[in-house]
Amino acid sequence: MKKNKELPTMPNIETDRITMSHGSGGKLTNKLLDNGVFRLFENDKLQKRDDGAILNLNGNIAFSTDSFVISPIFFPGGDIGELAVNGTVNDVAMTGGIPRYLSLAFIIEEGMLISDLWRILLSIKHAADKANVQIVTGDTKVVEKNNGDQIYINTTGIGEIHQKANLDMNKISIGDKIIISGNIATHGMAILSKREGLEFQSEIESDTTNLNFLVKDILDKHGEDIKLFRDPTRGGVATVLNEISTQTKLGIQLHSENIPVSKQVNGACELFGLDPLYVANEGIMIAIVSANKAEDILKTMKNNTKGVNSAIIGTITNEHIGKVISKGLLGGNRVVNMPIGEQLPRIC
Amino acid sequence: MKKNKELPTMPNIETDRITMSHGSGGKLTNKLLDNGVFRLFENDKLQKRDDGAILNLNGNIAFSTDSFVISPIFFPGGDIGELAVNGTVNDVAMTGGIPRYLSLAFIIEEGMLISDLWRILLSIKHAADKANVQIVTGDTKVVEKNNGDQIYINTTGIGEIHQKANLDMNKISIGDKIIISGNIATHGMAILSKREGLEFQSEIESDTTNLNFLVKDILDKHGEDIKLFRDPTRGGVATVLNEISTQTKLGIQLHSENIPVSKQVNGACELFGLDPLYVANEGIMIAIVSANKAEDILKTMKNNTKGVNSAIIGTITNEHIGKVISKGLLGGNRVVNMPIGEQLPRIC
Repeated sequence: MKKNKELPTMPNIETDRITMSHGSGGKLTNKLLDNGVFRLFENDKLQKRDDGAILNLNGNIAFSTDSFVISPIFFPGGDIGELAVNGTVNDVAMTGGIPRYLSLAFIIEEGMLISDLWRILLSIKHAADKANVQIVTGDTKVVEKNNGDQIYINTTGIGEIHQKANLDMNKISIGDKIIISGNIATHGMAILSKREGLEFQSEIESDTTNLNFLVKDILDKHGEDIKLFRDPTRGGVATVLNEISTQTKLGIQLHSENIPVSKQVNGACELFGLDPLYVANEGIMIAIVSANKAEDILKTMKNNTKGVNSAIIGTITNEHIGKVISKGLLGGNRVVNMPIGEQLPRIC
Repeated sequence: MKKNKELPTMPNIETDRITMSHGSGGKLTNKLLDNGVFRLFENDKLQKRDDGAILNLNGNIAFSTDSFVISPIFFPGGDIGELAVNGTVNDVAMTGGIPRYLSLAFIIEEGMLISDLWRILLSIKHAADKANVQIVTGDTKVVEKNNGDQIYINTTGIGEIHQKANLDMNKISIGDKIIISGNIATHGMAILSKREGLEFQSEIESDTTNLNFLVKDILDKHGEDIKLFRDPTRGGVATVLNEISTQTKLGIQLHSENIPVSKQVNGACELFGLDPLYVANEGIMIAIVSANKAEDILKTMKNNTKGVNSAIIGTITNEHIGKVISKGLLGGNRVVNMPIGEQLPRIC
């Protein structure tokens, strides 16, 4: 991983708030880019200032996009910039990719504080360095007040597929184990608590982080036994597992008692009447793996700093096809359905 | 180029307007995707419904991103969907790339008519087929009313670099010729006329189109003599040429009398007091080429349907370094500056 160089101070771009002119493509746009973005993210590809970057890549490459519209843009444990890097880095990693390059596109609402934009840019830089990806091309648009909400960020990522990766939903079979890499529901509850102005004994912090090195670790050691990776973001663990059971036409038996969730997050969920299975995550992943290697893989994951709370939380079955079933505390089975309506809006 | 199959009818997704639930990642999001997007853009990569697509590409690849926030979303000659495909296809092409794959990310304002979204999706499909690119991954977010403006679209494109492309701003040298592929200022004046409710004898239509086959044509025949491609979108021809003169530290002499602009667009510019050199384009490109091959290249461009109005409009000089100079009708030189403030907001 690269070391962070000392970060440049905030550029002087004449105004303290973003104006429509910053999005015009003219002098102010160039000033914002030259003094701010290009200086911060400097690399040989950006340097050229072409309409796009030229990259050298060979073989199977992963390609993933996400727009981030989270509100508030600064939240306990992170901000929209860090989230935008980690989110796409993780989506590339979930395909079995080693993320290498990101594009970065802003839609900024007129009137945004330039100091806030700068704080987000620094956070993007920091997250990109941590994940060892380069920002190589970008775009900035400005919209009038009340046609946006401070800032929306799109990141699109490219990476090379790990040589040992051979992920395929179709390889999932009866008996396979479901491993989760850490505590669930943390991101969603951090955002909700912040929005509702709730103070817990200690603040719940978003789990946003990059999972690409954890993925690499798992694939390095157990490539052939990994069937699928997914990160349970919007819609939470329940949504991801429902998608898997629907698409594989197999059943999923959850071992609810093994699902890791912090006491504090669990308490917050109870307070809001939310099931943690439906709450968004930004720093954990699910792996579907061969049953006979599950314990080995679990060990590998627990040995990685991003996976210390990993646990085997379920099994693929040939019962209740297309459904996710959870055994309750009293022993009865309940169906964990796909969420129907809104969970938490603008959670990512 | 692929033939358009008969396009599916609008999907039934329960409501006639987009709700926050369509962005929740749950049942309604999936319904919108299954019945709408995936059915429309069907290909083996989307089919997998992974977090990203896996593509096989080798060697130097082009990578470019753009967000589109144009208002109005439907305009004479096109709509935001078509623009979003052509814009990124062209940015990939301008690097010397042959565009192959696009990602597609929506930020939709709650309350948007689903019939309007469908119209845009059909338009995206049509434009992608015309440009011979596949939509292989995507994202949908919904924001509350007054936090967006119907729909913003990000497209990010990937392509392979043309084998004969060797574009480099540093290769530009004194005497090189500047060729433009068609009439200028058309897109900007189409949008402005529509916004202002002005009716001309016949409506001015945006020039939005895909330029990738024109680029391929030029590179196939004259690869070694092409120094740079640029599409003069936001900020118009003046901005692109100023960027080139600044970065090359050379001068540019414009031959104003050769710059193609339709009578109708010219009239509209006069009416609004705008210089067509600063008005946005979406369907033309600039090529900087070796002087001794300029006439041959011009011929190639004129023979392509996308370049029939091509013209040599300027020369790279060692005078007035870093500046773009235009000879006026009365023979005097004027400096064509970089635009300072706002030209037309939300033009792309």
